[in-house]
Amino acid sequence: MRPSGRNPNQLRDIRFTCHYTKHAEGSVLVEFGDTRVLCTASVENKVPRFLKGKGEGWVTAEYGMLPRSTHSRMDREAGRGKQGGRTLEIQRLIGRSLRAALDMKALGEHTITLDCDVIQADGGTRTASITGGFVALSIAIEHLLKTKRIKKNPLHGQIASVSVGIFGGVPVLDLDYAEDSQAETDMNVVMNEAGHFVEVQGTAEGHAFRKDELNAMLELAEYGIKQLLEKQQQALQEANSFDQSKS
Amino acid sequence: MRPSGRNPNQLRDIRFTCHYTKHAEGSVLVEFGDTRVLCTASVENKVPRFLKGKGEGWVTAEYGMLPRSTHSRMDREAGRGKQGGRTLEIQRLIGRSLRAALDMKALGEHTITLDCDVIQADGGTRTASITGGFVALSIAIEHLLKTKRIKKNPLHGQIASVSVGIFGGVPVLDLDYAEDSQAETDMNVVMNEAGHFVEVQGTAEGHAFRKDELNAMLELAEYGIKQLLEKQQQALQEANSFDQSKS
Amino acid sequence: MRPSGRNPNQLRDIRFTCHYTKHAEGSVLVEFGDTRVLCTASVENKVPRFLKGKGEGWVTAEYGMLPRSTHSRMDREAGRGKQGGRTLEIQRLIGRSLRAALDMKALGEHTITLDCDVIQADGGTRTASITGGFVALSIAIEHLLKTKRIKKNPLHGQIASVSVGIFGGVPVLDLDYAEDSQAETDMNVVMNEAGHFVEVQGTAEGHAFRKDELNAMLELAEYGIKQLLEKQQQALQEANSFDQSKS
Amino acid sequence: MRPSGRNPNQLRDIRFTCHYTKHAEGSVLVEFGDTRVLCTASVENKVPRFLKGKGEGWVTAEYGMLPRSTHSRMDREAGRGKQGGRTLEIQRLIGRSLRAALDMKALGEHTITLDCDVIQADGGTRTASITGGFVALSIAIEHLLKTKRIKKNPLHGQIASVSVGIFGGVPVLDLDYAEDSQAETDMNVVMNEAGHFVEVQGTAEGHAFRKDELNAMLELAEYGIKQLLEKQQQALQEANSFDQSKS
Amino acid sequence: MRPSGRNPNQLRDIRFTCHYTKHAEGSVLVEFGDTRVLCTASVENKVPRFLKGKGEGWVTAEYGMLPRSTHSRMDREAGRGKQGGRTLEIQRLIGRSLRAALDMKALGEHTITLDCDVIQADGGTRTASITGGFVALSIAIEHLLKTKRIKKNPLHGQIASVSVGIFGGVPVLDLDYAEDSQAETDMNVVMNEAGHFVEVQGTAEGHAFRKDELNAMLELAEYGIKQLLEKQQQALQEANSFDQSKS
Amino acid sequence: MRPSGRNPNQLRDIRFTCHYTKHAEGSVLVEFGDTRVLCTASVENKVPRFLKGKGEGWVTAEYGMLPRSTHSRMDREAGRGKQGGRTLEIQRLIGRSLRAALDMKALGEHTITLDCDVIQADGGTRTASITGGFVALSIAIEHLLKTKRIKKNPLHGQIASVSVGIFGGVPVLDLDYAEDSQAETDMNVVMNEAGHFVEVQGTAEGHAFRKDELNAMLELAEYGIKQLLEKQQQALQEANSFDQSKS
Repeated sequence: MRPSGRNPNQLRDIRFTCHYTKHAEGSVLVEFGDTRVLCTASVENKVPRFLKGKGEGWVTAEYGMLPRSTHSRMDREAGRGKQGGRTLEIQRLIGRSLRAALDMKALGEHTITLDCDVIQADGGTRTASITGGFVALSIAIEHLLKTKRIKKNPLHGQIASVSVGIFGGVPVLDLDYAEDSQAETDMNVVMNEAGHFVEVQGTAEGHAFRKDELNAMLELAEYGIKQLLEKQQQALQEANSFDQSKS
Repeated sequence: MRPSGRNPNQLRDIRFTCHYTKHAEGSVLVEFGDTRVLCTASVENKVPRFLKGKGEGWVTAEYGMLPRSTHSRMDREAGRGKQGGRTLEIQRLIGRSLRAALDMKALGEHTITLDCDVIQADGGTRTASITGGFVALSIAIEHLLKTKRIKKNPLHGQIASVSVGIFGGVPVLDLDYAEDSQAETDMNVVMNEAGHFVEVQGTAEGHAFRKDELNAMLELAEYGIKQLLEKQQQALQEANSFDQSKS
Repeated sequence: MRPSGRNPNQLRDIRFTCHYTKHAEGSVLVEFGDTRVLCTASVENKVPRFLKGKGEGWVTAEYGMLPRSTHSRMDREAGRGKQGGRTLEIQRLIGRSLRAALDMKALGEHTITLDCDVIQADGGTRTASITGGFVALSIAIEHLLKTKRIKKNPLHGQIASVSVGIFGGVPVLDLDYAEDSQAETDMNVVMNEAGHFVEVQGTAEGHAFRKDELNAMLELAEYGIKQLLEKQQQALQEANSFDQSKS
Repeated sequence: MRPSGRNPNQLRDIRFTCHYTKHAEGSVLVEFGDTRVLCTASVENKVPRFLKGKGEGWVTAEYGMLPRSTHSRMDREAGRGKQGGRTLEIQRLIGRSLRAALDMKALGEHTITLDCDVIQADGGTRTASITGGFVALSIAIEHLLKTKRIKKNPLHGQIASVSVGIFGGVPVLDLDYAEDSQAETDMNVVMNEAGHFVEVQGTAEGHAFRKDELNAMLELAEYGIKQLLEKQQQALQEANSFDQSKS
Repeated sequence: MRPSGRNPNQLRDIRFTCHYTKHAEGSVLVEFGDTRVLCTASVENKVPRFLKGKGEGWVTAEYGMLPRSTHSRMDREAGRGKQGGRTLEIQRLIGRSLRAALDMKALGEHTITLDCDVIQADGGTRTASITGGFVALSIAIEHLLKTKRIKKNPLHGQIASVSVGIFGGVPVLDLDYAEDSQAETDMNVVMNEAGHFVEVQGTAEGHAFRKDELNAMLELAEYGIKQLLEKQQQALQEANSFDQSKS
Repeated sequence: MRPSGRNPNQLRDIRFTCHYTKHAEGSVLVEFGDTRVLCTASVENKVPRFLKGKGEGWVTAEYGMLPRSTHSRMDREAGRGKQGGRTLEIQRLIGRSLRAALDMKALGEHTITLDCDVIQADGGTRTASITGGFVALSIAIEHLLKTKRIKKNPLHGQIASVSVGIFGGVPVLDLDYAEDSQAETDMNVVMNEAGHFVEVQGTAEGHAFRKDELNAMLELAEYGIKQLLEKQQQALQEANSFDQSKS
C-alpha cells in the first residue's frame, strides 16, 4: 500500500499553470501533487563563448530550492556561497534532457535559460522540472516564432520525465517524498514522444536491483510519461489560446 | 498622471494568501499589485552563538529574487557565489524591522528565519517583504503558542511598510516599477501600529529633496501603512479561522 | 548628560589632514573626535561596462575597517573571503551620496574610486567617510582640472553628513561609540550646501520614534552639517594653497 | 570498426598496481588502457556530524583530474576556487556505488575517504575510479582488520563498473576517448558480484535510444563487469601476498 | 648613485610612533622613509585548535595594503574575495619571524595577532612590517605583564628586518620603490639581537648572483639591522615612559 | 646519524621518468627518494593580459598535493575553495626560478604552464618540483623547436634546486620528511649551471643560524645541485633518444 493510497501505476495530480509570471518569455507552474516548481524560460540574444560565430543557439538550465520548500529549512545556497553537488547534478540533467529536443541551428544565436525553482518539495522535483521545463521552453519558442525572432521551429521532439522505484518490494510510479525517502531503488527516466530514452538514471538505495526489476520500472515509466506528454499538449494548447485571446 | 492611472495616495491591490506552502510554520504569498513575494517563517530550536545561554530568541531574514522575477534575467546569486550588496542591505532591513515588534525574552531560545523570495518584481519588493514577513511571522508565532512551544506571545507590536516617492514632481504612494525607475526621490518607511517610525530610508535619486517634500512623503506613508495594518489583521483572522477549521 | 560631556547639539572635534598620502590624486585623513578615516580618491581612465561609449564618468566608493580599528579585533574581510552586509551597505551609501554632487557628463570617461578605510573607530564612521570622501573627491577633481584631464568642473554641489540620535531621551548630534551603542534611535543624514536632503536613514534601535522626535533630529543634523560644510571649505582652501606652494 | 581496433565486446588492457603509494591505508593505480587513475583510501577515526553517536561509519569519495591529464590543459579547480558540476556529480556517484558494498555498522565510527585522482584521461575515468576505488577500499579494510581496529569485515559485496555505448550504430564495451567523444549514447553501469545493478546512468548524446539498444548495452556491461570482478580478485590476492611477504 | 641620493649603506629615515591607535594592546606606526605601515598587536584569550589544552600561546600575523597605498590603485582583496599569493607569503613570513623571539609556554593560552596594514608603500613593506611588528608585539606583552595576565616575559629575543639588493651593480641597503623595481637582486633578511639569521630570502630578479655578492649583501643587512635594533629599543623606552606618565 | 643512514652530503636516489604522461608537451615523474612529483609542461598560444602585443612569452607554475600524498590526509584544496598560503608560496617560487632560465622574447607569444603535482611526499617537494620542472620545460621547448613553433631556443641556462638544513647540529643535504620535521634550520637553494644563486630561502625553525652555518649549508647545496644538473642532462639525453626512436 502506497502512503498516498495511489495504485502502483498511478501518477499524482498533474497541473500546469502556464504564463504564471509575466516577465519571462515562457513560464509555467508545474505541480506533481504537492511538488510545485516554477519553470521560466528566458531568451537572450547571445551564446556561450564556445558557440560564438557558429550560428547555433544553446539551452541551459538552473535549478534551485527555496530554503523552506522542504520539511526542515535548508541553508540558502546564495548565502553559503556555492551550489551543492545535488543542485549542479540536477541542473545538468535538466539542460541535457531539454537540449535533446532541439535543433540548435534552427534556434540561431539565442540562449534559452530554464530556471526551475522549487516552491514546495514533495519528491520528484527533478522530473517535474524537466516536464515543466519543456512546457516553458515551448511557450518561449512559440513567442520567438510569433515575434519573428526565429523563422523555423527548432523543436523536433517532446520531452517528459517521471520517477519510478521499488517501494515495499513493488515497482511504483511517480514517488512522493514519503516513498522516495524509503524506496529501495529510485530511477529517473526521461523519454521523448517516440517512446525512446533520453536519460535513464537508476540508483540502488537499499539492495541492488535485478534485470527484471529494471524492466518493470521502465515499463511503468513509459506508461506514466505517455500521460505526461498528453497533459503537456493540453496545457500548451490552452496556453496558446489564452495567449491569442490576449492579442 | 501615474503610469498605472492610480491616484497619488492610492495603494496597489494588496493580497495576502496565507498558508501558501505547507512545510513552513508560517507562510504567506503577499502581492502589492504585480509584485509577488513568498514569505515563509521557519522556527528552529537554536539561537546564534552570541545569544547562547541567554534565554533569548532571535529573528533574522533572508531575501532573494528568482532569476527571472525581473524584466531581464538576473544572474542567480547562488551560481555567482555571493549575494550582492542590495540583497544584503534588504535582508538586514527586513530583519531589523521585524525584530522591533518582538520581545526576545518571551520568544525563548528559538530562531525564526523569514525567507522573502520574490516570485515577480514590479517595484516595492522590500516593503512587500516586510509587510508580508510580519504576517508569516505572526502565523508562526500563533503555531508556537498552539503547540505550547512558547507560553507568552512575544509579539508586542505590528509592523508594515510602504514606499513613497516624488514622481513627476508629485508625492506618490506605493511606487511600482514604472515609477520607481524614474522617481526623483524614493523613500521606504516602516511603521508600527501606533503610527511611530521603525525605519525611514530616503534617497534622492535625481535632485536633493526639501523638508516640505519629506513631510509630504511621510504623511502619505502613514496613510498607506494604516491601510496595510488593517489588511494584515484581516488576513490573519481568516488564516486563523482556516487553520482552526482544519483542526 | 552625554558620556563625552558635550552639549546635545555639539559636534566632536573635526579635523581634515589633506594630502595625507602621496600616491592618490586626492587624499585626506578625516577625524570626528577619535574616529579616524583615511579617504583617498583614485582616478582611472576607464568606466564600468554599463557606461562604455556614453561619454560619462562614474564615482564609486569602497569601505573597510582595519581589523583592530575597533574595541575587540574583527576578522579581516579579505581573509574571510567576503565583505559583510554592513560593509556593502555603507559603501553603497557613500557612493550614492557623493554621486549626488557630480555632473557625470562633465567628468567624462573617468572613474573615481573613493576608498574609505577606518584607522580607528569611535562611532560615526560612515558619516565621517562621506564628509571626508567629499574632500578627497574635490582634491582629485582639482587635480584633474589643473592637469587638463577635464575641462569643466563636474562638481555642482557640496556634500556632508552627520549622525543624530536619541540618547537618554534627548536628541543629540554626532554620536560617539559610547552613545551609539546605547542609543534608542540612530539616524544618518546626508545634505548638500542648499540644506536639502540627499539621504535620510533612521533606525529605531530601542523604541519606535515619533514624528516630533524625527523633526528634532533633522534640525540637529541640519545645524551640524552647516558647520561641517564650512570646515570642508576651510580644509580645501588650505589644501589648495599648500598644493600651489609646492608647484 | 573501433578506433582502437578492439572487438565491440572487448575491454581495454586492465591493470591494477596495488600499494602504489605508501601513506594511504589502501592505494592502487588502476589503468583502463591509457586511462590511469590513482585511488587511495584514507581511514579516519571520526564520522560526519549526521552520524555522530550512532556507532556507524561512512564512506565518501572525492574525484579530481590533474590539469594536464587531458588533451588540452584544464584550469586547476583549486585555483578557480570551486569544483565543477561534473566533478561533484562523479564523486557523488563513486561514493554511492562503494557504499552499496558496505555494512556501516560493522565499519564502526570510521570514515573512509576514497580519493580518485586522474593522472591521465582517455575515456571512462569514472568507471575506472569506481573499479579501482573498490580495490583501494578493500586493501584499507584488510588493513583495519589486521590492525584490529575493526573486528568484522564490513564488506558484504564486490563492486565494479564499466561504460557501454553505441558507436557507429553498434553497441560497444568500455569506450575510450575517441569513441566517447563521438558516441550516440553513453551509459555507465555499476554492478555487484551477484550481477545486480547498483547504478545505471544512460544518456542519449545523439539520438534517443530504444529499449532493445538499452538491453544490448546492459548485456555488454554485464559481460565486461564479470571480467573486471575477476581482475579485482586477482589484484587483491597479489596485494595481500605482497603485503604479507613484507611483514 | 641611488635615486634618493643615499649612500649604499644608508638606511632611510626610520620612525616609530608608538600607541598610534587606542584600541589595540600594542600599536605603532612604523616609517621607513615614505613607507608607512600601521602595526597593531591584538591579544585574545584563546588559541588555535591545534594548540588547545597544551598550555601554550600563539603569534600570528596578517598583512594588507590599502588599495591606494600604491602608485596605481590595486583591487581591494576583501572585494575580490581572496588574498593574493604575495599577501599570504608576506604574512607567513612576518608570523614566522616574530614567533622566533617568543617562548610560547611563557605566553600561556593567548593568541597575539599582528595586523600590518600598509598606509603608504614605497618599497620594503615586509621588512618594515617585521621591524614594526616586533615593537607592537613588545608593547602588547608589556601590557599583559602590567595587567598580570601573564607572569613571565615570553620574549627571549629581539627581531628586526631590512632589505638589501644589488642596484646598478652595487650592493645597497634598504631599497625604496625606485630601486626595488629595477634591482637585479633583492634580499630580505631577518636577524635577532645576537646577529644570527632568522630568515634569509634572496631572489635574482635580473641575473643570478654570486657567492661574493651574497656575502656583501648579508654584511650590509647586518649593519642596517644593528641600527634598527637600537631604534626599536629607543622607541620602546619612550613608549613605556609615555605609558607610565599616563597612569 | 641521519634517519635514512645517509652521509650528511649524500643526496637521496634521484630518478627522472620522462614522457610519463602522453598529453602534455613535456612531462616527467621526478623522484627524490620517496618524494614523487609529476611535472607537466603545457604550451598555449596565448599570453597573460599584461604581455599582450609585446611579442614575449611567459612561464608560470602551479603546485598541488594529492590529498593523501602525505602521512595524514589533507583537505582537497579544490573542495575547500581556495589554495593555501603554502601552495601559493611554492608555486610562485617554482615559476620565478624557471623564468630565470628563459629568454621571453625568444619564446614568442606562448605561455608554458608547469603543473607540479605531488603524488607522494617525503620532504623536499618544492626542490623536486623545480628540478623536475626544468626537465619538463626542456622537453616542451624541444617539442616547440621540432614542430617549428619557435625558431630559437629560449633556454639560456639550466636550473636545479635542493634543500639543505641543520639536523642534530650537523649540516645535511636533501632532507627527507623525518629530518625536515625536526630540523633546526631549513634552506631551499636554487642555482644555475654557472653555480650562481637564483633563490636562497633559509628559515630558522629552532634557533637562529650563524653565518658559518649558512656558509656550510650553501656549500652543501652547491655540491648537491652540481649532481642534479648532471642527472637532468642524462635524463634529457635519454628522453630525446627515446623520442627520436619513436619518430
